[in-house]
Amino acid sequence: MEPVALAQALIRCPSVTPADAGALDVLASALGGLGFDCTLLSFGQAPDGPIRNLFATIGSGGPHFAFAGHTDVVPEGAGWSVDPYAGQIRDGLLFGRGAADMKGAIAAMVSAAAAHVARGAPGTLSFLITGDEEGPATHGTDELLRWMESHGHRPDMCLVGEPSSAHDLGDMMKIGRRGSLNAWIAVKGAQGHVAYPDRADNPIRRLLPILTDLQARHLDSGTDWFTPSNLEITDLEVGNPATNVIPAEAKARLNIRFNDSHRGEDLANWIRETVAKHAPSAEVTIRISGEAFLTEPGALSTLIADAVQAETGRTPELSTTGGTSDARFIRRICPVVEFGLPGQSMHKVDELASVADIEALARIYDRLLQSVFAPA
Amino acid sequence: MEPVALAQALIRCPSVTPADAGALDVLASALGGLGFDCTLLSFGQAPDGPIRNLFATIGSGGPHFAFAGHTDVVPEGAGWSVDPYAGQIRDGLLFGRGAADMKGAIAAMVSAAAAHVARGAPGTLSFLITGDEEGPATHGTDELLRWMESHGHRPDMCLVGEPSSAHDLGDMMKIGRRGSLNAWIAVKGAQGHVAYPDRADNPIRRLLPILTDLQARHLDSGTDWFTPSNLEITDLEVGNPATNVIPAEAKARLNIRFNDSHRGEDLANWIRETVAKHAPSAEVTIRISGEAFLTEPGALSTLIADAVQAETGRTPELSTTGGTSDARFIRRICPVVEFGLPGQSMHKVDELASVADIEALARIYDRLLQSVFAPA
Repeated sequence: MEPVALAQALIRCPSVTPADAGALDVLASALGGLGFDCTLLSFGQAPDGPIRNLFATIGSGGPHFAFAGHTDVVPEGAGWSVDPYAGQIRDGLLFGRGAADMKGAIAAMVSAAAAHVARGAPGTLSFLITGDEEGPATHGTDELLRWMESHGHRPDMCLVGEPSSAHDLGDMMKIGRRGSLNAWIAVKGAQGHVAYPDRADNPIRRLLPILTDLQARHLDSGTDWFTPSNLEITDLEVGNPATNVIPAEAKARLNIRFNDSHRGEDLANWIRETVAKHAPSAEVTIRISGEAFLTEPGALSTLIADAVQAETGRTPELSTTGGTSDARFIRRICPVVEFGLPGQSMHKVDELASVADIEALARIYDRLLQSVFAPA
Repeated sequence: MEPVALAQALIRCPSVTPADAGALDVLASALGGLGFDCTLLSFGQAPDGPIRNLFATIGSGGPHFAFAGHTDVVPEGAGWSVDPYAGQIRDGLLFGRGAADMKGAIAAMVSAAAAHVARGAPGTLSFLITGDEEGPATHGTDELLRWMESHGHRPDMCLVGEPSSAHDLGDMMKIGRRGSLNAWIAVKGAQGHVAYPDRADNPIRRLLPILTDLQARHLDSGTDWFTPSNLEITDLEVGNPATNVIPAEAKARLNIRFNDSHRGEDLANWIRETVAKHAPSAEVTIRISGEAFLTEPGALSTLIADAVQAETGRTPELSTTGGTSDARFIRRICPVVEFGLPGQSMHKVDELASVADIEALARIYDRLLQSVFAPA
């Protein structure tokens, strides 16, 4: 099973969330050919669905190891120097939307799975693949895991193929992620002519101290495995075109990336209280995209590090940096670590993965499966 | 000369700035019929022009009294209960865009002028009417005054017919206006993923203390004739649709209405310095729409107050509240006071003036002209 050819076939499906564009069929066909039992699942309704997901499994009994990932990609954007969906290779680099995030890794997983099947080792190997990681993720991995639980599929450990490497393949794996919370704050006032401020009520006067207070708080100084939690105000919006008008409403949006010394709901309450102190009638909407979580360094991270070391000579840094990923759902059921290709080009124009890296990643995954499924 | 009929004729010209829609022709025709020497002037080029203006004058020598005003109106907006350009009268109320601001007053001026002409009094009576008071005002009264100066027309005193009355006709005249300044502040940063704040530079972090500092300053406590100067932040704009992105730029706009204890340029320098303290590379654009000015209570305001008192029994408050008006230009050449209809409905839907008020205003203007031109 040649991983680069499979990565090309996947890239040629323009599977921009929520579209699948045949990507999961390509994958199911490859895994089915290896003997996997493939279940294609469609979850959800408009507007966030329907979303296609794939659960594929082979073997029985323990250990039960799972690869997880997504075939959906972010929109290509403008300015590519190549066709983003052609899967073109130039100077040893495979270009295309999803090459790094994360069709290249999925292809490497299938390649490793082929070798595993050929070895006839005991135990269970599963694939948890969603078509909604880049979108709202409502009908993706979260729902797939619930389906698995109700059907008795419970992995012992899981590797997510997110592009975890920073610069060189193998320099970093992710053993946890910070939590993420978005808050929308809308302060109401009363519109009026700027020349008669006593007849109006400028909501910006209350929004400013709210944001200043929120920005001023020292959330923490970091933990053993996490950098300090951080708050960023990401948007301000009044939308008042008239220089002589005091506006009726002022809005702001903020994001907090928080480590495991916070719970999302505690931060949400602090935001609500801070807003209420200055503007009791303001509207606050808070969405916690994920809580902080950590897979403490242990058996899984050691097996991955050993495989990386053997293949690349590098010792991967154990990191919790970066955005959220579907590992935030998977950690409910088993230890989960993210390890995949270098991520510099992800979400950008001219996304790429080196052919050598995809092939080396397939060998790392193969070494990992050999260790996981080694006779005790 | 029946003022209400003339007001209706003017309203029927939809003269939304910069359009004239025949309004100045209606006026020139009425004044020409009274014997005024009418000069229609077109100033400026696109985008702020061309703008039609009217200078009309009758008589010679002193005293030289001028009526000033504008025939342009603000857009009608949506939600009228009548046709905004039909000049319809219902239950004694004349509805239409410009009824209060200020076609009703212009019609009252013409009515008073007719009586003045009929009396054959000595002296000079002029009309300074622009088609650009509601717009940028670049090619309106300011340029008309320069044309008048170069042609030897210099009034001794001037009444602007802005809707100065607050609730009832005659309850208020404006003897000055606060200055007005708008400032646009754009703070640049560096865009990046919110999960990696060390690789980005959030401009909102610098914009907040700038605005907090500006908002915190006590500008003054008011003067004999002016309320305290006031600063309002009127707009905030980031325009970042993505919850996971730190934006590249954050913008704010503010307005200061300032009394005669400040000069616009001093305030502009203070704004620039405050911004530079927090964000040296921020862009600041400042436009001073007008300096604060005052026509100290004296001969003109007394003559107007006497006419109001005689006609309505009210003693007009001498006020400097409200927005800017073209009086800010006229005060360069002579004492200027604003006196006109009640302004509650100006710029709103269903703008209106009562028929009785228009007729009473015509009589007040008539009494004023009789006093101004009374034999010494």
